[in-house]
Amino acid sequence: MRKTEMNQQTNQGENGNAEPRAKSEKEAGLFDKQLSRRDVLKIAGAGGLGLLLGGGGAYGVMAAKETLNHTVRKTSSPAGSRAPFYGQHQSGIITPTQNFLYIASFDLTTRSLADVRKLFQAWTEAAAVMAEGVMIGDTNNHLNLPPSDTGEAAGLSPSRVTLTFGVGPSFFDSRFGLSGKRPASFGDLPAFHGDALLPEWCGGDISVQVCADDMQVAFHAIRNLVRIGRGTAVLRWMQEGFQRTGPADPAGGTPRNLLGFKDGTGNPDTTDTGDMNESVWVQPQDGADWMRGGSYQVVRRIRMRIEVWDRSSLADQEQTFGRHRDSGAPLGLKDEFAPLDLNAKDSSGQPTLPMNSHSRLAHMDGKVKILRRAYSYSAGMDTKTGQIDAGLIFICFNRNLQKQFIPMQRILAKSDKLNEYTVHIGSALFACFPGTTKGGYIGETLF
Amino acid sequence: MRKTEMNQQTNQGENGNAEPRAKSEKEAGLFDKQLSRRDVLKIAGAGGLGLLLGGGGAYGVMAAKETLNHTVRKTSSPAGSRAPFYGQHQSGIITPTQNFLYIASFDLTTRSLADVRKLFQAWTEAAAVMAEGVMIGDTNNHLNLPPSDTGEAAGLSPSRVTLTFGVGPSFFDSRFGLSGKRPASFGDLPAFHGDALLPEWCGGDISVQVCADDMQVAFHAIRNLVRIGRGTAVLRWMQEGFQRTGPADPAGGTPRNLLGFKDGTGNPDTTDTGDMNESVWVQPQDGADWMRGGSYQVVRRIRMRIEVWDRSSLADQEQTFGRHRDSGAPLGLKDEFAPLDLNAKDSSGQPTLPMNSHSRLAHMDGKVKILRRAYSYSAGMDTKTGQIDAGLIFICFNRNLQKQFIPMQRILAKSDKLNEYTVHIGSALFACFPGTTKGGYIGETLF
Repeated sequence: MRKTEMNQQTNQGENGNAEPRAKSEKEAGLFDKQLSRRDVLKIAGAGGLGLLLGGGGAYGVMAAKETLNHTVRKTSSPAGSRAPFYGQHQSGIITPTQNFLYIASFDLTTRSLADVRKLFQAWTEAAAVMAEGVMIGDTNNHLNLPPSDTGEAAGLSPSRVTLTFGVGPSFFDSRFGLSGKRPASFGDLPAFHGDALLPEWCGGDISVQVCADDMQVAFHAIRNLVRIGRGTAVLRWMQEGFQRTGPADPAGGTPRNLLGFKDGTGNPDTTDTGDMNESVWVQPQDGADWMRGGSYQVVRRIRMRIEVWDRSSLADQEQTFGRHRDSGAPLGLKDEFAPLDLNAKDSSGQPTLPMNSHSRLAHMDGKVKILRRAYSYSAGMDTKTGQIDAGLIFICFNRNLQKQFIPMQRILAKSDKLNEYTVHIGSALFACFPGTTKGGYIGETLF
Repeated sequence: MRKTEMNQQTNQGENGNAEPRAKSEKEAGLFDKQLSRRDVLKIAGAGGLGLLLGGGGAYGVMAAKETLNHTVRKTSSPAGSRAPFYGQHQSGIITPTQNFLYIASFDLTTRSLADVRKLFQAWTEAAAVMAEGVMIGDTNNHLNLPPSDTGEAAGLSPSRVTLTFGVGPSFFDSRFGLSGKRPASFGDLPAFHGDALLPEWCGGDISVQVCADDMQVAFHAIRNLVRIGRGTAVLRWMQEGFQRTGPADPAGGTPRNLLGFKDGTGNPDTTDTGDMNESVWVQPQDGADWMRGGSYQVVRRIRMRIEVWDRSSLADQEQTFGRHRDSGAPLGLKDEFAPLDLNAKDSSGQPTLPMNSHSRLAHMDGKVKILRRAYSYSAGMDTKTGQIDAGLIFICFNRNLQKQFIPMQRILAKSDKLNEYTVHIGSALFACFPGTTKGGYIGETLF
């Protein structure tokens, strides 16, 4: 509580309040001692990690909660704009899709499992605090230290921010002594027909997916995790995504991708626990105990050939997706959510839904489902071609990659008419941990 | 009106309605003739331009308005979400800042002024239609043609989208016979101390600034203009920007940049016509008649050294901006909007506002103002350094560059403490035309 009082007084002092500063020697010492730049760097340690953890693991969070009046970000938004961080599963998987995405992949620069544990403890603390819209740590008002929160989300609502953590196949190499823990179904993806992967968009030891309804809140979250990770993990790649910002279609309509079509209409129902246990969450009988309640994530960066698409006729476009553009309904039908009729024929006896249409192929036998959670991206102009660099950050969650994403993508890669207009340039795979409860940390089941 | 009826019937047909199709021979011919891919490309001409303009210049807009029931994008948002396109000045300059930005620079591939005129006519039509939330053109339901609107904003509100057009100094070279029209105050920017400009982020013959409260609506707008321009203009660069999405601070507080600070607090009042005439709009006595009511735009891509900043103490950071981080108030004061006191001294006789602080230097003598309209950007990871590639797309509008931006930037480039944490990597300059009225087009005063 002493720290809390001190923070309050620092705050007043900084705002020009003439009230005498704290009297106790301890406080006065912390206040008045001039720290050299070297001292500051020493205190900050290898990165934000030392600062955030302070003396003991849970310190940062406790301090933040105790100084709630000062550190909670002012907001006019309802409590409903918070997405709960703690729970059986990590948030950001079946959470209703927010409007913005940052997804980053990291490589570990340490070979010590203890460091990895510390990193995930610090990240968990920071994530829980950010989900509440609270500033990270307790040094935001200490003039002689770098702020423990970078501040750009001050005044903004929590914006349903979610942070979702995972580890890639490379994490299970020899570095951390955990190669025996790699789930049998979790290896590198096979090479798919047509893949044109660029190393700068592939792989990674660790993933952090941040989603929020405010892009600045999402940026703040990923940036602070990068900062906290300094000295333990370095960025390998980072991708920004978006979807339409406006209120969701009250009828639950699917957002349009940058080709103008509704895609992902056939997603399973995230409110149906049975469906989620079937398709998304790893179950006890699946092996790899530490992944129970977790999910396997696929990230594919899919560049769209916007300019070629824009020269195709509407008929071509609709036959490519197997859907009407305006309504999103399967070809020949009117309702976006009408089930696909794979047997329907037109008057000349041809399948109404072309055999190589995207929705038909992705539907497979109708039994295998993945949970798609994709975002659009645009990244300026491709300086090599002068074309718009835009497309889809395809993200999906699976209970078992071998039975879900991999067979589906094999079929799509080989036959999908959409391949004429898209190219897969990035690929990564992560095992996203189960959730945790207060006092625990994400990753505790493995580390 | 014939076209309109046809569109309605096409629409019904596509939705599976069994109502007999149009009876007149002309309509039947347009419907039923199977067009080859070559035909389609011929009709589409060099790009969307031919399609959009159809037989006569204003056709696309008229058709779109007449088929309003079909082509207006469904929206649940209030009429207030439209930003008027027509007027004495272009929108997007003093329009209250929207949350998202796309700004693109184009180079002309034609040497014909008539082509340039046609391009701006087509862009004006499309811009006016998009500002109303209406689909572009009339071929969105013709199966055998590429849609005249790419469709990804269907169902989304107009989102206060604004489109703002300008020409760069290079436009006034020998190609179009307009070198005599270049305003005396409008040449290339001088080289500023510390500039580290990359050619891929600099210059251009033409600019289009799109701002909207929905990123997908903004993307749709710039993408369709790129498409319409095909054959006449090619992209030179394109930049995406954002600010916080949440409701604006009711007290009118300034959004924070990615360094966590409120910057731009000293902006002139856009509701004060006198201030705007003084600082933003070109006046009759300024020469260059075609620019009366227009404004000169500066675009600078300013990379932030995020990682270095995050290791600086709060005191360093506050002295850099000359403001308190939390409140945004000038150092030593409490109110964000308190005027800077350049003479204030601390107890040791030193200036309260450091001589090299950003706000002090940008304030200059307090008389020269520019209208800033900046956005943050983030563009993944810099693959060369492994650091976050993020910063500010600094945009400002000026009545006279020689008296406003240029002298201000000379001072900042030389002395600003903020330069320790930023680097200017892109630069461009555009003369943004005055507005136009229905039936006219942006650029008509020059072309």
